[in-house]
Order: sequence, then structure tokens, then C-alpha cells
Amino acid sequence: MQGVDPAWLPDEAFRPIGTRRTLIRGSGPLVDTVHAEVAEACVRFGGSVSRDGTLVSCAPYERYDLVLELTGAEDGGGGEAFTFERGDGPATVTASGGSGLLYGLFHVVRLGDTAFQGSYGREEHRPESAVRMLDHWDNVAVHPVMGQVERGYAGGSLFWQDGRARGELLGRVRAYGRLLAACGINAVAVNNVNVHEAEAHLLTDRIREVAEIAGALRPYGIRTHLSVTFAAPMVLGGLPTADPLDEAVRGWWAEASARAYAAIPDFGGYVVKADSEGRPGPFAYGRSHADGANMLAAALEPYGGTVHWRAFVYDHRQDWRDRTTDRARAAYDHFTPLDGEFADNAVLQVKHGPMDFQVREPVSPLIGAMPGTRLAVETQATQEYTGQQRHVCWLGPMWSEVLRFRPHGGADGASVGELARGGLVAVSNVGDDPFWTGHPLAQANLYTFGRLAWQPHADPGRILDEWIGLTFAPGPADTRLHAGLRTVLDGSWRTYEKYTAPLGVGWMVQPGHHYGPSVDGYEYSPWGTYHFADRDGIGVDRSVTTGTGYAGQYAKVWAEVYESPDTCPDELLLFFHHVSYGHTLQSGKTVIQHIYDTHFEGVQEVEEAREVWASLAGLMDPARHARVAERFEEQLRSAREWRDQINSYFLRKSGVADAHGRRIH
Amino acid sequence: MQGVDPAWLPDEAFRPIGTRRTLIRGSGPLVDTVHAEVAEACVRFGGSVSRDGTLVSCAPYERYDLVLELTGAEDGGGGEAFTFERGDGPATVTASGGSGLLYGLFHVVRLGDTAFQGSYGREEHRPESAVRMLDHWDNVAVHPVMGQVERGYAGGSLFWQDGRARGELLGRVRAYGRLLAACGINAVAVNNVNVHEAEAHLLTDRIREVAEIAGALRPYGIRTHLSVTFAAPMVLGGLPTADPLDEAVRGWWAEASARAYAAIPDFGGYVVKADSEGRPGPFAYGRSHADGANMLAAALEPYGGTVHWRAFVYDHRQDWRDRTTDRARAAYDHFTPLDGEFADNAVLQVKHGPMDFQVREPVSPLIGAMPGTRLAVETQATQEYTGQQRHVCWLGPMWSEVLRFRPHGGADGASVGELARGGLVAVSNVGDDPFWTGHPLAQANLYTFGRLAWQPHADPGRILDEWIGLTFAPGPADTRLHAGLRTVLDGSWRTYEKYTAPLGVGWMVQPGHHYGPSVDGYEYSPWGTYHFADRDGIGVDRSVTTGTGYAGQYAKVWAEVYESPDTCPDELLLFFHHVSYGHTLQSGKTVIQHIYDTHFEGVQEVEEAREVWASLAGLMDPARHARVAERFEEQLRSAREWRDQINSYFLRKSGVADAHGRRIH
Repeated sequence: MQGVDPAWLPDEAFRPIGTRRTLIRGSGPLVDTVHAEVAEACVRFGGSVSRDGTLVSCAPYERYDLVLELTGAEDGGGGEAFTFERGDGPATVTASGGSGLLYGLFHVVRLGDTAFQGSYGREEHRPESAVRMLDHWDNVAVHPVMGQVERGYAGGSLFWQDGRARGELLGRVRAYGRLLAACGINAVAVNNVNVHEAEAHLLTDRIREVAEIAGALRPYGIRTHLSVTFAAPMVLGGLPTADPLDEAVRGWWAEASARAYAAIPDFGGYVVKADSEGRPGPFAYGRSHADGANMLAAALEPYGGTVHWRAFVYDHRQDWRDRTTDRARAAYDHFTPLDGEFADNAVLQVKHGPMDFQVREPVSPLIGAMPGTRLAVETQATQEYTGQQRHVCWLGPMWSEVLRFRPHGGADGASVGELARGGLVAVSNVGDDPFWTGHPLAQANLYTFGRLAWQPHADPGRILDEWIGLTFAPGPADTRLHAGLRTVLDGSWRTYEKYTAPLGVGWMVQPGHHYGPSVDGYEYSPWGTYHFADRDGIGVDRSVTTGTGYAGQYAKVWAEVYESPDTCPDELLLFFHHVSYGHTLQSGKTVIQHIYDTHFEGVQEVEEAREVWASLAGLMDPARHARVAERFEEQLRSAREWRDQINSYFLRKSGVADAHGRRIH
Repeated sequence: MQGVDPAWLPDEAFRPIGTRRTLIRGSGPLVDTVHAEVAEACVRFGGSVSRDGTLVSCAPYERYDLVLELTGAEDGGGGEAFTFERGDGPATVTASGGSGLLYGLFHVVRLGDTAFQGSYGREEHRPESAVRMLDHWDNVAVHPVMGQVERGYAGGSLFWQDGRARGELLGRVRAYGRLLAACGINAVAVNNVNVHEAEAHLLTDRIREVAEIAGALRPYGIRTHLSVTFAAPMVLGGLPTADPLDEAVRGWWAEASARAYAAIPDFGGYVVKADSEGRPGPFAYGRSHADGANMLAAALEPYGGTVHWRAFVYDHRQDWRDRTTDRARAAYDHFTPLDGEFADNAVLQVKHGPMDFQVREPVSPLIGAMPGTRLAVETQATQEYTGQQRHVCWLGPMWSEVLRFRPHGGADGASVGELARGGLVAVSNVGDDPFWTGHPLAQANLYTFGRLAWQPHADPGRILDEWIGLTFAPGPADTRLHAGLRTVLDGSWRTYEKYTAPLGVGWMVQPGHHYGPSVDGYEYSPWGTYHFADRDGIGVDRSVTTGTGYAGQYAKVWAEVYESPDTCPDELLLFFHHVSYGHTLQSGKTVIQHIYDTHFEGVQEVEEAREVWASLAGLMDPARHARVAERFEEQLRSAREWRDQINSYFLRKSGVADAHGRRIH
């Protein structure tokens, strides 16, 4: 892996451990991983590590600086929690499972020297979400136009190369697993939810290749999942139907699952995109999505597997002339009638917003409306609509807002993070790029997602500090570098929002590839993605009183807030309401002046961030600095294009001059 | 060629000849072709043909119904003219060259039985344009997205298959040559003007394949031309430069041309797209386009070859914010300073309009501004911007308007048809589709182009009658069928114009593939293709007084007409002027009401044409009828989409209600 960026696990991050004396107690494969990590650090920095497989509680701990102790009998089960404490003696991590011990080790890595200084009372750490998952939209085959990774902006697939699993290059996959474990991820789906011909076979005759990948990820506590096509019994099994209530179909899935578990004993299960954007699904047989999901759940149940059933179901062949159909309503309308019908090991995977990963959306009302269903909440680390890893756009603040949102209001109502009992999922932003994520700063999104999945209410700024501390090795210039990185990243999501589609309206992107502006690009399309701008105003009326009724899908506390343009938050105004350009926002500005101002500001902020980045040259690996600097040039060009197209479009349409007389074309 | 539509040469068209007695006099390869055509018809229908290679003027003509006589010594040269006459004796065709005799034969085919009835004084027929050419934008390689034929809507290439010339399938190419000869075409360029890697080699190591195609076309009097890349000396020859004044470069071209002529003695020459949309050209060396063209002309001159140098040179990376740059000006600005500098065998090939084959453009001012240069005028038979052979759009009336246009005004000023001394060229609409052109009625465009190239001032309606008469075999239902076809085709271009971009403004198409509406699709693009619509008005001010000055590129008589919105023809108003939606056209309607009305009318006309077509079922080959019927469904769907998007866009922008209260979304 020469030339591959170490991301947040540079050798230097292990110096505090590698210079000290460590005792590891316990046995099992993940303890082996912990031991290997520490041993490598000690070789590098001169420390020492002992291993004691027997559990003798009165060992002479005082001889060590760090003790990592497995308290369970073996490390296969036992969970992911760990404790950390330090009194007068060594810093001590205990865990009842191997995963917990591994997470404890990375906790010590994050603490650095401070883990060995002062005293800590006993802290218990446990993930709040049991499933912390990355979905890779990777194809085995390379599409001539779309490339290999759907919505991927970091090169080809990390898992698949030359038409098969990476084989001898699985070392890279293992390194990826290590990075993921160090930020708390414990599940990976290795192929695209749009399952094409070649990829369908991964479930059956190519399951060995999936097993190879699973083998590379397993030492870091990561379970492997597979996206499957609902039509598999027909496509692969030659059956005349894929009806989920058909016995032969159920039998086929049971057998396929048995074979998958024979190859991969800790296989995580299936991810399914059904009846969505042309994919096959249970509707063809007059069955419900609960029927479909439960059939797969039944096939996985004997082995402890889970089906992640995506709720991304809507009419993608809508007539733009029809203003009564509202795509935002679709997931709620489809799935709330099924609440309580899904099996325990069927997880309904819901996108965090009702549309599709726009830079600003309200939280999906479905998340608060399925009390009898295990939900996973899906986000997108890959920056499909947020600059495609050519723009800096740190999504931590957006995800944090979503996870802290309380669908039923009140300070003590459950938050999205708490409601996501079935897990937190992000579409991966990683490929075979040497920097993993194309834009080196996009690594921060991956890290932040993992840490937020572990602790959804964590302060994203603190997570960003962690990422900076680990990724950019400490040194004398540390403070300036750290401050510079925070300046560049902190507000980057809001900056991106400023220069792109305004006030929550979304979708003003180039059709197809979704990069760069096209205000009307999706306006007369079948995708249900409209802004309805005319010479007088803009926005989608989703109120109950006069609009599509979408606002009424929320609990009363939010439905009331969103129902009126007077109470709807500015940043979502055009998502919920069609207003005149002269409408005054809560900020005191008119809509049209807000559009002009934010677009000028957004570009200016990119210019400033680029300057800050330039000032950091010399404080980091030159290759990393150069890659980001180069991307800043494109970001600035693109941001100016966004500014000018959006402002021109609305000046031409509204006829309202900029209050500050700036040049609009 | 089983299953291939005979187009305008069905067996039945040869019945009048095939049932009679024909004498053919003269020798040579094209006389052989004539003989074979007549002989085959006689075999089929019971007539007879004699051949007399000696020129004995007192032969007993009265024994024959038809005499086809070569008066020149041999048929290799001698030109394309022929005479036709009939008194009391046989109908007689004479020609001094084999091509002329062949054209005379097809003249008799067109006349049908009437050739043998009544008497005709001696008519002399000669083509008004010496070069009547089809340019195929065919690639040897198949592009995964663009397909094989650039802007091709009739399947794959007729010439290239599986990465090489068609080989044993050249019979199809020969049949194509026969069709072309029957409408007067005498030159074909066999590959795309965008010359990619594989196709560059056709000039050198793959010239034998071009020779095979030339061999299949030669029996019908068609010369083969080749598109070449200006960078060939570097790409193919390994030279460090392609500078047209460099001696090594000139030597390379001389040698390449010598080898081309060794392989193809009647090779037509080169077609070149240089310094255009990213193609290499002389600008890179600080040389003029005359330098570039003349270098190639010099290489071809010893062999009688010609270089067709395209004038399609403009800035395709324009900044949409810059309203001073006007793409329409580009060809004139680039080339008029070079008038008189081009070699005799260098033909400047000019698109008929200043932009790029929109449904309505003014005639290019360059055509009237190059008195010292041989010009070819290029049109597009392939319907890139006119419905892509899914819509019926017979272009005869448009071409006729262009060819009759007199750039210097006056009834006796030279017309475009007369000014095109270097030839008339169309981009072919043919592929390996069984109907040749995808849409069977698109055959009419190919036929009409050939006949107009022969006689630019011909009445296109008369040509359409010819095409109908030949293509749809006569029978008892003939009158109804003929009238129905005229109804469907006659106004189809104006119908298409009605439901697409209004009043000459153009470009409201989906970017990239150019099918279907996208009003703003090219509005913020680098392509120089804007409409500048805002809430008050629309159009491009190209006047001299207040605009880009483009109108001033015309001779005074037209410059004055175009300069003012009061005199500019309605159909070009938005090409030349930016006017308010309330501006009153010469028709008496406002611009906005014109937009609404034409779009409703256009769709209605498609609905009516579809009905007429349906009524013709049973009067023709069912497969042909079905293919057209199927395409009418798509045309209607698409026309409605155009109507609704255009009308909605302008209603939203202008706020002006339709005077007739029709539904606009």
C-alpha cells in the first residue's frame, strides 16, 4: 500500500502506546488484532507488549503503563462496550468482547499521551447504535460512463477489480477495515443497491469472492453484507416468479442464504432496493413491502442475519404537470400502513430526508412514524449533491442536526439518533484513490459518520478535533494547522448551501451526473423534483391547507411549525412553501435578496477558505496539501458558476435588482 | 439484402423499361452498370435489351422503344449531362460520359410509362452543382454511448462493421450507391469529421478498406472521400509538428496522398474539420486556415483531388456571461479575410446557417461574402435538431428556401444554389437500418437533397411527388395514397418548427443528445447558444445599432431588413432581436401569443398527420406502415412535451395568460 494516505491512523498516532509497556490479556482473533497493532507500534517506537492468555486478576499490573483486558471467556461475542480508567497504576481497558477491546485500543490511540497522564475514573463506553454501517454502491463491472462506483468520486472500487474481488490486493481492504474500526464502523455492504447482472451472481456462484472480502474485514470486527436483487430467484434460480409468498421462491432464498452462511459464518445479511427507480420488487405480485422484507428476513433468521430494506420508494416517472403528486410524501405514504408488520430482523432503511440527500432537507417524517418497526437511518457520505469530493463540504453539522432532531418535539422526546434502532448507515465515499476519498478532507466525513453512529449526540466539532489530531500528526505548528483546518472545514457545509440551491428548495443541479448548476435541470422532468419558480415567486407548497399535505405527515409540534411560512425555518421555507420573491424571511431579508446575498457570500467564503488552505502549505505532507489546493481551484470555479447562474436566473425571472448593486449577468 | 427496404428503387419502378425493348450503345464500366440494370428489369418483366458497343449512327432504332447511347469515346470522363427526347421513334438518351448515361437511365425510370408516350423535344439535363455529396459521420469503432454514427438515427454504420469495412456485406454499400445515383449524388465521405484514433488510420495503413468501399460505390458514379485529422503527420507520421508550412509535414501529406491515389485512382479527396470544437488545426502554429487548406490542396492537386475545408470554426468555450461574443459571427469573421487565398481545389464548406442546423436560421452571411473562393454549402439530412428520425420532418422546403436565397438581393443576383460552386453537401441520415433512415419517411429527405443538389431551384414539391411515385408503387389506391403522403410530409417541417423553439431563437433542446425540449438547456453553457429570456422579453440582439453587429455581415439589402424588428421576418425575429413578449409581429400577433398558438397548433397538426397516416394502412407494405405508425406515437408524445414545456416556461416567465384560455401548466 505504498503511496496510500494513512488517513487517521498514521504511525505517529501510535507513538504514545508504542513507547510504553502494554499488557494484553485474553485470547481470540480480535485480541490477536489488538496484539498485532500494539506490537507493531512497539517495534516502531521501542515500547514493549506482553500477552497473557490466562485470566489471573492479581497480575502485577504496576509493571505496565497500559493493560488491555478481555473479561469475557472468549472474544467472539460479548459486545462492543469497553471501560477505560486510570488511577495510580496503568491505564486500563476492559471489555467482555474482542470488538470492545479493539474499540478500547483505538480509544487509547485517540487519547494519545493524555491516556497516560493524570487519573480517570472508570468510564464506560458503548455504542448507542448496534449497527454502524457503510453501504458501498460499488459494481464489479465498470460502466463506460458511470464508472465502477455509482455516485463514487474516489476512483474505482476498493473491493472489486478487473471483474472480481481484489484477491492479492485485499491488503487494501484490510487497511480499510482498520480505518473503519478506528472510527467505530462495524458493518459494510460491498456492492451497489442497484444490482446489475454481474453483481447478482455474488449471492450464489460468486459468494466465495464475498467471503474473501469478509475475511479481510473480519479481523477488525466488521460484518459483511450484500446487496441483492429481489428478482434473484428468477435471474439466478430460473424460477418463473419472485413472489415473496410463493413457496418455491421462499425455498430458493432459504437455500441461497444457507449457502451464504456456509461461506461466511458471520455474514451480516441483505440490503435491498425494491420497487424503486425501476428495480424489481413485491408490487409486481400484489404483495406488500412487509411481505417482501419478511420473506428475506425469514431466510436470514436461522443465522442471525438481517435484511436492510430500503424505504426509497417513489414514482420516478411522475408527470411534472401534475402538482398533486408529491415525491416527498412517498416513503411515509408507502410504509406507515405497514408499521408493526415487519419481522424483528427486517430493518427498514430510511433516507434522512424525504427526497434524496440534498444539501438541505427536513428530517423524513417517516422516522417518527414507525414505532413498531426497526428503522435504520441512511445518510450519504459520498458527496453526490454536495460537491462530489471536488468541493470541501464537511457534513458533520448536517448529520448532527438530523440525529438530534426530535420528531415528536420536547426536550425528552426521542431523537432520530435514538429512533434509529436498526442502525445508522452511510453511503460510502471511499474508492481506490490513494487518499481514499478523492478529496483528502472528505476523509473527515467518513470519520465523523463513524463517530456519530457510535454516539449520535456527540458534538461534531469535538469529532472533527479528534480527526484533525489523528490525521495531521502533532508538531510545533500544530495549533496553527489545527485552527486552519477548523476554519476550512467548520462552515463548509453552510458555505456549500449558500452558493447552491437556496432555502431548502434543492435540485437545481445538472441532470444525470448532478454536478454543477442547472436551475431548471429537473423542473420539467419525471423525477418529482420541482421548484415551480415563476416571475412572482418560488417554492413548493407542501402545507396541509393549500398544498400537498406533506407537512401533515409530521407530529403536531412540527406540522404546525412547517405549516405556515411565518413559523417555518428560513432554511426550509421553499421546501414547504411557495412564496413571492418579496416575502420577508425571519432573518428580515426578502427571499430574493437572501438569494443574491448568500450566493455572493458563499463564493467569498470559498475564496477565503482557499487562502487559509494556501497558508497551511509546509505544515503537512506536500502531496496531501497539493491535492486539496488543486481541488480548491475547481471548487472556486464551480462556486462562481453556481453564483452567477442562480443569481442571473432569479434576476431575469424576478426583475428585482440587487440591493447592493453588485454585478449580476 | 433480404428485408431491406427498396426505398425509391422498387422492382416495380423498372416495369416500364423491363417490359420494353432497349438498345444500349457504348462501352465502359458505367455502361456496364446501365446494361445490368436494364437487363435485370427485362429478366423480371419480359422485355429485352441489346448492346452495341460500336457507334453506328444509322442503326435501326425503330426496332427499339428505348435507346441509351454513349456519344463519347469512353465513359470514364465526359461528364454527367444527358439528353432525352422522343419523337415518333424510340425514347432516346444520349450522354458523352458513362455517368450521364446512368443518370439518363434513372431519368427514364422516374418518367415511367410516360417516357414512352407522346413526344418530347430534345431536353438537355445537366447538374448545376458538380459535387453533390453526402458526408457520413460514421466511426469505425462503436462508442458505448454515442453509438457508431455521430448524430446517426438509423442504426450502425453502413460502411463499417465489427471494426472494419463491411467486407462481404459491401453488397449493401453497392445498393446504397445505386440509390444515391438514382437521386443524383456523386460523392460520399465515408467517415466522421471528428476523426478519432482508429479512424485516423484509414488514411494510411487502412486505406485498402476505404478502397473496398470505393470499389462498391464506383459502379454508380460515386467518388469516395475521406475525413482526415489535421494532426495526421504527428498522430500517424510521428512528426513533431503538423505545421502546414513545414516541409516535412507537406512531404508527409504528399506521400500519404500518393498512396491513397495508388489504392483509389478516383479518390475524391479530404474532408477536414480543423480548429473546431477541439479538433487540431493550423491555429496551433500561427497559420491561417488558407495555409492549412492549401497544404492539403497541394498534396491532392496532382491527382485531381479536392479538400473540403469546413468553415465551422467558433469558440465552443465561450463564457455565457459575455454578451459581446456572438457565435453567429464566427465563420464570417474567421474566413472573409481569407477570401481569394484558397487554392482552386480547396473548397470551403459552409453550413447553410450561421449556427448549427437549427430548424430555422437565416442563411449564413459567409456564403455571399466569398466571391474569390469555391464554396460548398453543407446541410444536414440527418435530423439532429429536427426530430432525430423519430419525428416526420421533411426538410425539402427549408433547403429550397436556403438554395433560392439571394445574398445580394434582386431577382437576378446569384442564389445560394448558384454560389455553391464547390458543391452541395448533406450530412447523411443513413445507417444499417432496414429502412435505411430509421424513419421510412426520412428517405424523402435523402432523395430530396440529391435532387436539389442536381437542380437547386427545382420545386421541392415536384421532387416529393417523384419520390412518392417511385417509392410507393403505383396502383388503384395511388391517388389517395399520394395525397395522404403529401399531407403528412408537405408541412411537416413547419409543424416541427411550431412545436419547438419559436421565431428563430433555436437551441431549446436537451444538451448533449439534442432530443426533446430543455428551454434553458443551453442558456448558461459555453456553446454560444443563448435566448436571453427574462420576465420581459426574449431574443438575441444581433443588430448593428444596439447588438452584436451580426446583421451587418449581410449585404446592404439584407442587413437593412434584418436590422430592424419592424422589417425582420417574423420567423427570424428572435434570432436578430431581443423584444418584449408584447411585441407585435408582422402577423399581427404578440410574440407571447404566437408562442402559445404555434405550440398548440403544432401538436394538433401532429395529431392530424397521425390520423392521416393511420388511414393509409393497407395501401403499402405493412412493415413500412407499422414502423411509421409507431414513430408517430413517439412524435406525438414528444410534441406534447415540447408544447407544454415551452408554454409553461413562457407563461411562468411572462405572466401573460393565453388569450384563448387554454390549459398551460
